[in-house]
Amino acid sequence: MPAAKKQGQQTLVFSNPPVITASGTVVGTKEAAGPLGKTFDRVVDDPYHGEKSWERAERRFLEDAVQIALKKANLSSREIDFFLAGDLENQTEASALAARDLGIPYLGLYGACATIYEGIALGAVLIDGGFAERVVVAVSSHCCTAEKQFRYPTEQGVQRSLTQSWTVTGAGAVILAAQGSGPVVTHATIGKAIDMGQADPNNFGAAMAPAACDTIVRHLLDTGRGATDYDLVVTGDLGLIGRDLAEGLLQDHGFDLAERFTDCGVLIYDPQQQDTHAGGSGCACSAVVTGGYLLQQIQAGKLKRILGVGTGALLNADSPKQGETIPGIGHAVVIERR
Amino acid sequence: MPAAKKQGQQTLVFSNPPVITASGTVVGTKEAAGPLGKTFDRVVDDPYHGEKSWERAERRFLEDAVQIALKKANLSSREIDFFLAGDLENQTEASALAARDLGIPYLGLYGACATIYEGIALGAVLIDGGFAERVVVAVSSHCCTAEKQFRYPTEQGVQRSLTQSWTVTGAGAVILAAQGSGPVVTHATIGKAIDMGQADPNNFGAAMAPAACDTIVRHLLDTGRGATDYDLVVTGDLGLIGRDLAEGLLQDHGFDLAERFTDCGVLIYDPQQQDTHAGGSGCACSAVVTGGYLLQQIQAGKLKRILGVGTGALLNADSPKQGETIPGIGHAVVIERR
Repeated sequence: MPAAKKQGQQTLVFSNPPVITASGTVVGTKEAAGPLGKTFDRVVDDPYHGEKSWERAERRFLEDAVQIALKKANLSSREIDFFLAGDLENQTEASALAARDLGIPYLGLYGACATIYEGIALGAVLIDGGFAERVVVAVSSHCCTAEKQFRYPTEQGVQRSLTQSWTVTGAGAVILAAQGSGPVVTHATIGKAIDMGQADPNNFGAAMAPAACDTIVRHLLDTGRGATDYDLVVTGDLGLIGRDLAEGLLQDHGFDLAERFTDCGVLIYDPQQQDTHAGGSGCACSAVVTGGYLLQQIQAGKLKRILGVGTGALLNADSPKQGETIPGIGHAVVIERR
Repeated sequence: MPAAKKQGQQTLVFSNPPVITASGTVVGTKEAAGPLGKTFDRVVDDPYHGEKSWERAERRFLEDAVQIALKKANLSSREIDFFLAGDLENQTEASALAARDLGIPYLGLYGACATIYEGIALGAVLIDGGFAERVVVAVSSHCCTAEKQFRYPTEQGVQRSLTQSWTVTGAGAVILAAQGSGPVVTHATIGKAIDMGQADPNNFGAAMAPAACDTIVRHLLDTGRGATDYDLVVTGDLGLIGRDLAEGLLQDHGFDLAERFTDCGVLIYDPQQQDTHAGGSGCACSAVVTGGYLLQQIQAGKLKRILGVGTGALLNADSPKQGETIPGIGHAVVIERR
């Protein structure tokens, strides 16, 4: 007997679609200088955010994003049932410290850069299942913490390869609620960890593209929908290289999304002007573009229904050195104007 | 309007309690030599488990635990809706690679050593909410990967302080299902990240005890139950020092659990014979004791209803060096014989 609220192999269907009642986005100066600069709630000029380390700064970005979302929704942290959060720091330390400071019961997640979409999916499960009235989902990333942790000492300023993406400095939070006004979450498709043998930690786009494709195809098969059912299919942080690879893979599967397919990592920077090579990445990439630009487009009526697909590269600093290839993952969520 | 399946501030109530239909536990030789040695499904003599690194070995432990549980339940991985997993490696790499190899849609969690209980709680939410028919929840830890990652090079053999615990080498998996026979999960209490200012990364017990106490007190207040409603209240990996601290804190709150209160990290080793100082810790500690000894006691009718409280220390290798204190977390789940 299949589960009542599951459709096909991997897709959850929400019978009382949870509402995104508010979002909060905080970014650094590089993101503010990009094409979406005016869509973010707050720009923090200082990469240290007044703290003594980039790690502590990242935690401040995360807390700020949550506080902005709470303020917009006119809620206190006591009115939130659960805090679902994750980030790229080892042992998701930014989220743990934010959870401590916010004092909300905490469910820690790790979905790499797909975490905001994993969190929206699980938050919607908690609400539609009757287990929560309101949850906050939030993630962060920081260019300088990610560089030193995954690659080289940030101060060293190592030359970046052209396939490499730029980690977004910032944080995004969304409030999901059983009631209220705003766009709703109607479906979620939970991805598999897909590994096509890509082993270069300087090319995440190539590692993640097959997973993004797999989840999108699965979503369309599970729901019986086609590409034209969506105004936009938008991946998390494939960047320029990964976006093109995913587009080709989707065509191989018989789905030509071309005109309605894009990626948050492609949208957030201007690669010519900003020297960002393959585009944006990091947990915050999909979170600030979804919580900012995309939700604004939906609220303005310019997009009616989108399929957002958070993407993540499931490696750590050691795994490629130990000979492992890099699995990718994609978690998809349908957001639509009600 | 409060959520229908939430009781009090932090407790979820499952109206169709998910069934733990099978479990799988795999440990190393040190765990096999301890008081619970005969309760585990498999003992792996080689800490490398046939691999070239401890990290790759840890992934094998995790996969073995899942395969054992699947075999006991006579299920293939294709019959599982979702794989909820986490571990202590940076970016939970053991779980990511296991997810790739198992091919089950993957929800990555990070709750430090409380992850198996966080996973059981979320797995029960997915099943009771109608979103899944069967899930596997699994975690791993490895003494040698944890030592080198959090403290010193393992080969260095640094002298361990007496407040330090011994990371359990092993993995535990449980299968939760909407139908079947076995003990059931009736409640889950999601913890807050609690920080009382403990800053010593060689004394996790002291960092986690206040969080364990907070969650237990919250659970009893939320449900209106008392200690006598449980045959056993068992924390995850407080160890000898943390167990005593938690017991005292619970007494301060008016709850005297003494005779029915213990800890998986206290049960798993013999501190006199095995030189384990404060006791056992790690994601696998609560997972193999719960998936082995505790479920066996319930199935044998010796325990009717227990409150299991996974405990986690929310630090990484850098956070104490950057001046941060260590938040703890506790997630509780009620397991009872049906």
